[in-house]
Amino acid sequence: MSSIRVTVWNEFRHEKIDEKVRAVYPDGIHTAIASFLKGNFDVKTATLDEPEHGLTDEVLANTDVLIWWGHMAHGDVKDEIVDRVYARVMEGMGLIVLHSAHFSKIFRKLMGSTCNLKWREIGEKERIYVIEPGHPIAKGLPEYFEVPHAEMYGERFDIPAPDTQVFLSWFQGGELFRSGCCYHRGAGKVFYFRPGHETYKVFYQKEIQTVITNAVRWAAPVAGPTVTFGHRPEPIEDVTPYEDKSA
Amino acid sequence: MSSIRVTVWNEFRHEKIDEKVRAVYPDGIHTAIASFLKGNFDVKTATLDEPEHGLTDEVLANTDVLIWWGHMAHGDVKDEIVDRVYARVMEGMGLIVLHSAHFSKIFRKLMGSTCNLKWREIGEKERIYVIEPGHPIAKGLPEYFEVPHAEMYGERFDIPAPDTQVFLSWFQGGELFRSGCCYHRGAGKVFYFRPGHETYKVFYQKEIQTVITNAVRWAAPVAGPTVTFGHRPEPIEDVTPYEDKSA
Amino acid sequence: MSSIRVTVWNEFRHEKIDEKVRAVYPDGIHTAIASFLKGNFDVKTATLDEPEHGLTDEVLANTDVLIWWGHMAHGDVKDEIVDRVYARVMEGMGLIVLHSAHFSKIFRKLMGSTCNLKWREIGEKERIYVIEPGHPIAKGLPEYFEVPHAEMYGERFDIPAPDTQVFLSWFQGGELFRSGCCYHRGAGKVFYFRPGHETYKVFYQKEIQTVITNAVRWAAPVAGPTVTFGHRPEPIEDVTPYEDKSA
Amino acid sequence: MSSIRVTVWNEFRHEKIDEKVRAVYPDGIHTAIASFLKGNFDVKTATLDEPEHGLTDEVLANTDVLIWWGHMAHGDVKDEIVDRVYARVMEGMGLIVLHSAHFSKIFRKLMGSTCNLKWREIGEKERIYVIEPGHPIAKGLPEYFEVPHAEMYGERFDIPAPDTQVFLSWFQGGELFRSGCCYHRGAGKVFYFRPGHETYKVFYQKEIQTVITNAVRWAAPVAGPTVTFGHRPEPIEDVTPYEDKSA
Repeated sequence: MSSIRVTVWNEFRHEKIDEKVRAVYPDGIHTAIASFLKGNFDVKTATLDEPEHGLTDEVLANTDVLIWWGHMAHGDVKDEIVDRVYARVMEGMGLIVLHSAHFSKIFRKLMGSTCNLKWREIGEKERIYVIEPGHPIAKGLPEYFEVPHAEMYGERFDIPAPDTQVFLSWFQGGELFRSGCCYHRGAGKVFYFRPGHETYKVFYQKEIQTVITNAVRWAAPVAGPTVTFGHRPEPIEDVTPYEDKSA
Repeated sequence: MSSIRVTVWNEFRHEKIDEKVRAVYPDGIHTAIASFLKGNFDVKTATLDEPEHGLTDEVLANTDVLIWWGHMAHGDVKDEIVDRVYARVMEGMGLIVLHSAHFSKIFRKLMGSTCNLKWREIGEKERIYVIEPGHPIAKGLPEYFEVPHAEMYGERFDIPAPDTQVFLSWFQGGELFRSGCCYHRGAGKVFYFRPGHETYKVFYQKEIQTVITNAVRWAAPVAGPTVTFGHRPEPIEDVTPYEDKSA
Repeated sequence: MSSIRVTVWNEFRHEKIDEKVRAVYPDGIHTAIASFLKGNFDVKTATLDEPEHGLTDEVLANTDVLIWWGHMAHGDVKDEIVDRVYARVMEGMGLIVLHSAHFSKIFRKLMGSTCNLKWREIGEKERIYVIEPGHPIAKGLPEYFEVPHAEMYGERFDIPAPDTQVFLSWFQGGELFRSGCCYHRGAGKVFYFRPGHETYKVFYQKEIQTVITNAVRWAAPVAGPTVTFGHRPEPIEDVTPYEDKSA
Repeated sequence: MSSIRVTVWNEFRHEKIDEKVRAVYPDGIHTAIASFLKGNFDVKTATLDEPEHGLTDEVLANTDVLIWWGHMAHGDVKDEIVDRVYARVMEGMGLIVLHSAHFSKIFRKLMGSTCNLKWREIGEKERIYVIEPGHPIAKGLPEYFEVPHAEMYGERFDIPAPDTQVFLSWFQGGELFRSGCCYHRGAGKVFYFRPGHETYKVFYQKEIQTVITNAVRWAAPVAGPTVTFGHRPEPIEDVTPYEDKSA
C-alpha cells in the first residue's frame, strides 16, 4: 500500500435531505469514494458540517491529496477554509475536483476564471476518450469508455487551457467537454474530472474508480525543492551596484 | 491609427511622495506609457485616487486593453473594482500587467497562484531573450536586448505555466526569469511583462515600448463568439430521457 | 486588402479522375479555396503535377502562408520539396493543413508523430465547438456550427498537444476530435483544420471560409527577430575561460 | 528496485580517439550513466559501432526507457534504426535526450523543428533553476544548483514549446536556455536535458544523476490504452448514411 494520505471531502447535504440521493449513496458520496481508495491509500473523510468543515490545519497538514465534491452548498464553504486549502495546494498538496465542484470556491480561485459551463440532466450517454495515452492518469483504461447515464456538461467550459488534457467527453445530446484536465498551481497539482453525479451511479463504475485512483498518484506531492520568495539583497554573482549620477 | 481603445492605469502614489520617482516620471508612469502609445491607439489614463479608481463601468465598457501598473498600494485597490476588471477580462478585454503589478490583486486573481518571486534592487543588467520568434509580441525586436539597470526578479516565479512564453530574462547577479507570459482567461487575454521600475528609465526605452505596443495589439478583443452558459434542458440531438426504474 | 501572400496547394488528382469529385470542385479544391480568399489576400495556387509541384524556391520565397490539401497522393510528393517547405516554415512561413493532409509528409515532419486517426465516410453530422473564444481564429464565429455531412475523424489523433486548441468536433456516430490545432514550429506557425472533403461541399460553407481566412491572418509571419545559430566563441559578459589543471 | 528496463545508448567514438575524453570517461559515457542508474533500474547499454547500433528489435522491445548520448557522429546513425526507435516511442517507450544529442536524428524527428541553438566551450558556470517544483523530475533537488564548468547552450533553442518546462539554465557568459523539457509524442514521453559534456565531469555530479534518475521514472511507459487507428466503417451510435441525391 502506498503511503499517500488522501482526504475525501463532501458537502454531505443532499444525501441527508433527498431520498433519491440517499438511495444511491446511503453513507454519502465521500464514503463511496473512500471505499474504493482504501485498498491503495491511507484514506480519511471530511464534510461541510463538521467544525472547520473537517479541514483543520492539522487535517490539511496530514493530507497529501484532497478530493473535493460539492454541488449545492458551495456558498456555505467559509472563505477562511478555502484560503487554507489554497495555501496547502501552493505548498504542494494535490487536489482532485469532481464534477459539480467545478463551481466550488477553491477550484474557481485556483483557475482564475469563471469555470462556468452548459448543463442538462436527462441521463444521456457520455463517452470518455483518452486523448493522452502516455499520461499516468490513463493507466489501465481502454481507448474510451462509457458512462451510461450522465448529467451533460458542455463547452465552452470557462477554464484556462489545461497543462495536459487527458480526457474529452462526447455526449449523446450533441455536446462535448474537456473532462480530464491537469494543472500545476504553486507546488501543487490539480486534476479536474467531469463525471460524477449524486443520483447516477457513476462512482460505482470501475473505470471511474481507476481514473480517480490514478489521479491520486499523479497529484501526490513529489518532495521537490522548498521554494523561497522575497528579498535577495546579495547577488549570487559579483555585481557592482549602480548609482544614478544624473539624479 | 488602430481603433483599439487603451486605458493605462497607475497607482500614481510614489510619483507624488518621492522626488526621485518624480524626477524620472514627472507626470506619472501612466502618462509616460500613454505617450508612446498615443500615435497608435485611442489612449486614456486612470489612477488609484480617482473616484472608483478611474475604472467606472463606463470606462471599462469602453476599454479594449487595460494596462496595469502598481507596486506600493496593491492593498488599496477595492475588491469591488478588482471584480469589475476581472468580469471585463472574462468578457474579452485584454490586460497587460507590468513589472511589480505581478502582486496586484487582479493578476493574482486571474492566475490562481501566489505570483510570488525573488527580487533585488542594485541596478544590475537584464538581458531579455525572445524565445518564440514567431509570436506577434516579438515583432520588430532583435534576438535579445538589454535593460542596462533593472530591478532583478528571479525564479521560482509562482505562476501557472504560460500558454506561450515569449521572453526570458537573464540577470547579471545570477538569476533568470520568465519575463513575457501570455495567458487566455475567459474570453480575454493577459500578458505579463517583467521590465519596468519607478526610478530606472525602463519605459523610455525603445524595445520596451515596442513590446507593450505589440502586446496591446495581441491582447485586443477578437470579436469571437458570445459565450453562453447555464441550463440547456433541450438536447441538440434527439435523446430519450432516462428514468431510473430501480429507484 | 491585406498584403499577405497566400499559396493554395492541391494534389489536384482526384478531381481529374473521379466525376463525383469534379462535380463538386470542377476547377479543383485549390481554386475553390483561392476564390473565397481572393477578396482579402494576394492569392496564387500550385499543384502536384506542375514542375517542382509548383513550389519552386521563388514561389516559396514569395509565400507568406501556404495552404495544403492532399489525400490520395501524399507519397508522390518529393522529399526534396517537403524539405524546402519545411525550411520555409522554420524561417517563418505560415502553414495551414486541411483535413486529409493530416497524413501529408510535411505535416508529419513538423509534428514529430504519426498523425494517425480513426475515420469513417457515411456523411454524418459534425458539430464544431469554439473552445478558445478569445483566439483570433475564432473571430466572427458562433459558439458552434455544424457541417451537415462530413467524413468522421476520431480520437486518438496522434499529434503533440497543440499550443492552442481552438476547436473540438462532435460527430453523430459517437466520436470526437481535436479539429483546430495551433502550433509554433521554428519561426513559423502551423494550423491544422479538420473539416474538408473532396465530395462534401465543406469549402463552400461560410463558417469554414471564415476559419481559413482567420487562420491565414494568424499564421502570417510577424517580422520577429532574425534568429541566428551556431558557435559564439566570445561570451557577452566577461568570463575567464576554464582550464582543467587535473587533466 | 524498480522493474523499469533502461538502455543507455552512446556513440562511444570520442572516448576512443581523444585522450582527454577517455581520461574523464574511461569506459565511455554510457558506462558512467549506467553506473549510477544500476541501483534503481534494470540497466543495459548499447553503442553506435555494435551491429544495428546495439538497437535490435529485441533490445528495443525490452527497453522501457532509452537514454541517448551523441555529439560527433549523428550522421552515422542509420535512418532505419532511427525509424525503429521512433516507432517504439510512438508505442510508449520513454526517451531521454542528453546535451549534444539535441542534434541527433531521433530528437529532431520527434520535435519537428531544427533543434538548433547557440554554443560556446570556455568552461563557464551554469546555474540550473527548477521552474516547476511540483513536477516529479524535480524530486529531491534544491531550488537551483550549479554546474561549475559547462559548455554553454543559448537561446533561441529551436524546439516546439515543451509540454512542461522543468528547468531553465543561466550562464555566466550572458545566455540562458530551456534546459529541462518534457514532451508527449505518440504514447511515449521524451525528456531533453541540457547538461552533459564529454570532458567536463557533469555526469559524476549528484544533482545531474538525480535528474536523470527521476526522468527515467517519469518517462517509463504507463500501461495506458492500446491505441488503434484506421477505418471504422460502423459508427458507435446509430446513423443513417447520407446519400447525395443532387449528384
